[in-house]
Amino acid sequence: MSDFMFQRMALIGIGLLGSSIALAARQRGLVDHIAITTRSEATLHRAEELGLGDSYHINSVDAVKDADLIIVCTPVGACEAVAKAIAPHLQPGAIVTDVGSVKASVVRQMQPHLPGNVHFVPSHPIAGTEHSGPDAGFAELFINRWCILTPPEGTDEVAVETLHAFWTALGSNVEMMDPHHHDNVLAITSHLPHLIAYNIVGTASDLELVTNSEVIKYSAGGFRDFTRLAASDPTMWRDVFLHNKEAALEMLGRFSEDLTALQRAIRWEDGDKLFELFSRTRSIRRSIIDAGQEVDVSDFGRHLRDGETHAKTLNRDDHEYTGS
Amino acid sequence: MSDFMFQRMALIGIGLLGSSIALAARQRGLVDHIAITTRSEATLHRAEELGLGDSYHINSVDAVKDADLIIVCTPVGACEAVAKAIAPHLQPGAIVTDVGSVKASVVRQMQPHLPGNVHFVPSHPIAGTEHSGPDAGFAELFINRWCILTPPEGTDEVAVETLHAFWTALGSNVEMMDPHHHDNVLAITSHLPHLIAYNIVGTASDLELVTNSEVIKYSAGGFRDFTRLAASDPTMWRDVFLHNKEAALEMLGRFSEDLTALQRAIRWEDGDKLFELFSRTRSIRRSIIDAGQEVDVSDFGRHLRDGETHAKTLNRDDHEYTGS
Repeated sequence: MSDFMFQRMALIGIGLLGSSIALAARQRGLVDHIAITTRSEATLHRAEELGLGDSYHINSVDAVKDADLIIVCTPVGACEAVAKAIAPHLQPGAIVTDVGSVKASVVRQMQPHLPGNVHFVPSHPIAGTEHSGPDAGFAELFINRWCILTPPEGTDEVAVETLHAFWTALGSNVEMMDPHHHDNVLAITSHLPHLIAYNIVGTASDLELVTNSEVIKYSAGGFRDFTRLAASDPTMWRDVFLHNKEAALEMLGRFSEDLTALQRAIRWEDGDKLFELFSRTRSIRRSIIDAGQEVDVSDFGRHLRDGETHAKTLNRDDHEYTGS
Repeated sequence: MSDFMFQRMALIGIGLLGSSIALAARQRGLVDHIAITTRSEATLHRAEELGLGDSYHINSVDAVKDADLIIVCTPVGACEAVAKAIAPHLQPGAIVTDVGSVKASVVRQMQPHLPGNVHFVPSHPIAGTEHSGPDAGFAELFINRWCILTPPEGTDEVAVETLHAFWTALGSNVEMMDPHHHDNVLAITSHLPHLIAYNIVGTASDLELVTNSEVIKYSAGGFRDFTRLAASDPTMWRDVFLHNKEAALEMLGRFSEDLTALQRAIRWEDGDKLFELFSRTRSIRRSIIDAGQEVDVSDFGRHLRDGETHAKTLNRDDHEYTGS
């Protein structure tokens, strides 16, 4: 009896998430064999060069054969095709999960095709960086990050507990959620922020009045903060908005409504209204830092990397500017 | 003959910018005496506790007396009142500058009140953090950041060169610009990003469907990136939008127009349009990193501060995710 949590883990798709899972699971000794499959020969070859797995398969069917854990790490738009392709070849009792940023759509796409003798437990590890591809992965990605599980009604308890234990072993804090509520929560905490970031970077690059080189040169004024999210994987994000359409449109509608009110306050020089909003948004960052979901380093610690150090900015409370 | 660049530097306002100038100028030995004045007794007392200057004055008149460099470090809305108050007490030949984030308005507010025998050279150091107040300052704030000077027509060349040398000595790269062009450039690189950040944090905190604690808990999905800008000083930013109204409204109009087009693309499931935007915004971050205005550290190096390290994320090029 081996003490691995799983004998064979099949990773379908080997981008930032897939490669990070491979590295973390291997580092923590959670799986015996890691089978990697991806549609792109170049990516599969790169994964092999990086030594991310034990076997590499261009056909997903070969990867899932005899696997007791299958993790779909593709853009969410590919989930249905993947489910159809692997369904007939799944081992009874296998746990099938994913890492998609939307959950209701993934359930809609995959569940109808999966046999009743496998356990389907969708996952969403809320972790990532602006980098993508198999080179982007690192074993620490999931540490102290949340992972949301959205098991359908009546899913086998033991299977859910086992997957829960797997994510916990990777360093995540695990939560259970209804898939529709998940999609609303992520629409505001992740999807809308990415859409806004992509949009402002697009607006800036289209200006005639201000050149792109000026935008780049003077980006330290705030613009550069948006460029991190706007450098995220285009395929993944296209699929997120196509598959979480309703929630994204709802949050976007509220955002635009609020922005129009702010625009009116500027036009009519309503300083009190601006001050009120600018003041109440301040405390949220402190709460995020206190919740351990952000680092308490001034300016994201950029100055610490500019060849200078100033310990003062570390773990310092915020102070009000009282003007002159 | 002393080898100080200035004998007496008067700082009017001692928040993040004022305190950073004080620390940097002292560290680099650019000034002999630092006179600090601010309207708030508490702030003035705190500045004295921190030992930021050599003399502390509740009345700006006492600070500017015999000063050969006067730097107004107040929110831009206070510039005209400051100019009126200090004008009769300025030493002939003194250089008067500021650190305001808008320039045309500062020129409009101050120039009419200043005597012809002083040199008025507005400055805008494009540097800052989300922290404010006299405790927030640090000597390295200006290193490798741009500082834009907007001297009015016919300003004394020597005075401009002297101030240029002062900012260079603080670590800045100095540029000359027309005040109106400055206001357009900053509207897109700094003012609009702050407005968007304040707005989305406001929208998120007003939701009924998703609780604030969920927003905070799952903010690592992207939302937290916006909270840094939304934690900036409310008084300073209220004044920025009241004093750069036209340019801010112009950029906001373009942003909203583009966002509406994006909303339509989501509603009509135009994946190609989404993919096109999400792809072309990607290169801008790389340009900003190459321009030395951003650090090339994945996820702002947050993982490096989570008690884990992964050298792989340092100075790594971006890799395309090729899907599965």
